[in-house]
Amino acid sequence: MKLTNRPIRILAAASRLIAHYGFDKTTMDDIAREAGVSKGSLYLEWPGKEPLLHAVLNYEMQRLLADFQQRMQQDPQGGQIANLYRHALLALQANPLMCALYTRDSRVLGDFVRRQDGQRYASRILLTRDVVAQMQAAGLVRADLRPEAIAYLFSVIAVGFIHVGSILPADQQPPMEEIAGALSAVVQNGFAGPGGDSAAGKQAIQALDALVRRQYQKDEQA
Amino acid sequence: MKLTNRPIRILAAASRLIAHYGFDKTTMDDIAREAGVSKGSLYLEWPGKEPLLHAVLNYEMQRLLADFQQRMQQDPQGGQIANLYRHALLALQANPLMCALYTRDSRVLGDFVRRQDGQRYASRILLTRDVVAQMQAAGLVRADLRPEAIAYLFSVIAVGFIHVGSILPADQQPPMEEIAGALSAVVQNGFAGPGGDSAAGKQAIQALDALVRRQYQKDEQA
Repeated sequence: MKLTNRPIRILAAASRLIAHYGFDKTTMDDIAREAGVSKGSLYLEWPGKEPLLHAVLNYEMQRLLADFQQRMQQDPQGGQIANLYRHALLALQANPLMCALYTRDSRVLGDFVRRQDGQRYASRILLTRDVVAQMQAAGLVRADLRPEAIAYLFSVIAVGFIHVGSILPADQQPPMEEIAGALSAVVQNGFAGPGGDSAAGKQAIQALDALVRRQYQKDEQA
Repeated sequence: MKLTNRPIRILAAASRLIAHYGFDKTTMDDIAREAGVSKGSLYLEWPGKEPLLHAVLNYEMQRLLADFQQRMQQDPQGGQIANLYRHALLALQANPLMCALYTRDSRVLGDFVRRQDGQRYASRILLTRDVVAQMQAAGLVRADLRPEAIAYLFSVIAVGFIHVGSILPADQQPPMEEIAGALSAVVQNGFAGPGGDSAAGKQAIQALDALVRRQYQKDEQA
């Protein structure tokens, strides 16, 4: 499906309302009003709230990836593993719906977070084994551990980063800038490979991006 | 409160039932029966399910710490930062009620996980700033980052480790042995200080243990 202007306006409106009021309390009426379209044309695009939610999550995933890419490209050293990691987390934190997906926040996403397709979404933007293997081949990531194990540990850190806020008291959370810096230092020492310049890292991330976009198109056609 | 044999039998019985059936579905009757005590003597110890739950969580926290200590002491290199970390996580994973606390699993702990005291418990067994500072002084942990930031990152990894299982498909999870080994390697490179032998690490952990025990006693007296 090619996204023209109106569908995007609808998706952005639905995303805002769901993030603010939660999926359960958001109606198709609310979404049509917020997007400035008639209810008829809303239903023409999506037959109900549930398929619309899938489209909204795909839309936000694209936005998250685009945001990540932009942060990475603007940073000359953005392709180094520590910086890649930092940019990805900052992009994720800036996206309320993707955060809700990871924290399984049912106040935002209703019972979708407990269902299997919710977890399918959440797992999709984690670094895959294949992307890690490519990073290892480029010397960006240490090669003495299997890519499966590295991908798993990256996921652990990403998931922990999003969840920790709900467990640690606010007064035990250092400023975000300091956390991002410390995380960079630790990831650099813990995961970096022998070589691997920033350019190689940026290239590996393009591969991830292409992979997610293919998944997305497959979903849209389904 | 001095724990005699009967209270411990009750706590262990309550813990088993809550882990299996969940707090909401477990009654005081069930607990008395499982522990082999009369309902009267159960109420003599705890006036209701809610205070009993607090006692059960304190009890499981003690058990978790004891299990961790034992794993650490049995390992000659158990006091090195990478091994400390690994032993702590394995002990945590072996304790269903503590895992439920961290994953905020309301099927096990009911709405307790959403309340403030639930989070107070969860935060308590994370490594504190003070323990990290002590590890830094002993050369066990890198000293170029503030202890607050290191404690935060340790929490991120601990919390991520427990949550990741609900997000990653099972076929993307390497064997636990491999994960623990990879985590050790990464934590060693990412966090280790210049010196710091295993003995210094074991000493720092004793301090943590003492701290948690003091907290526990304060709770019991409250």
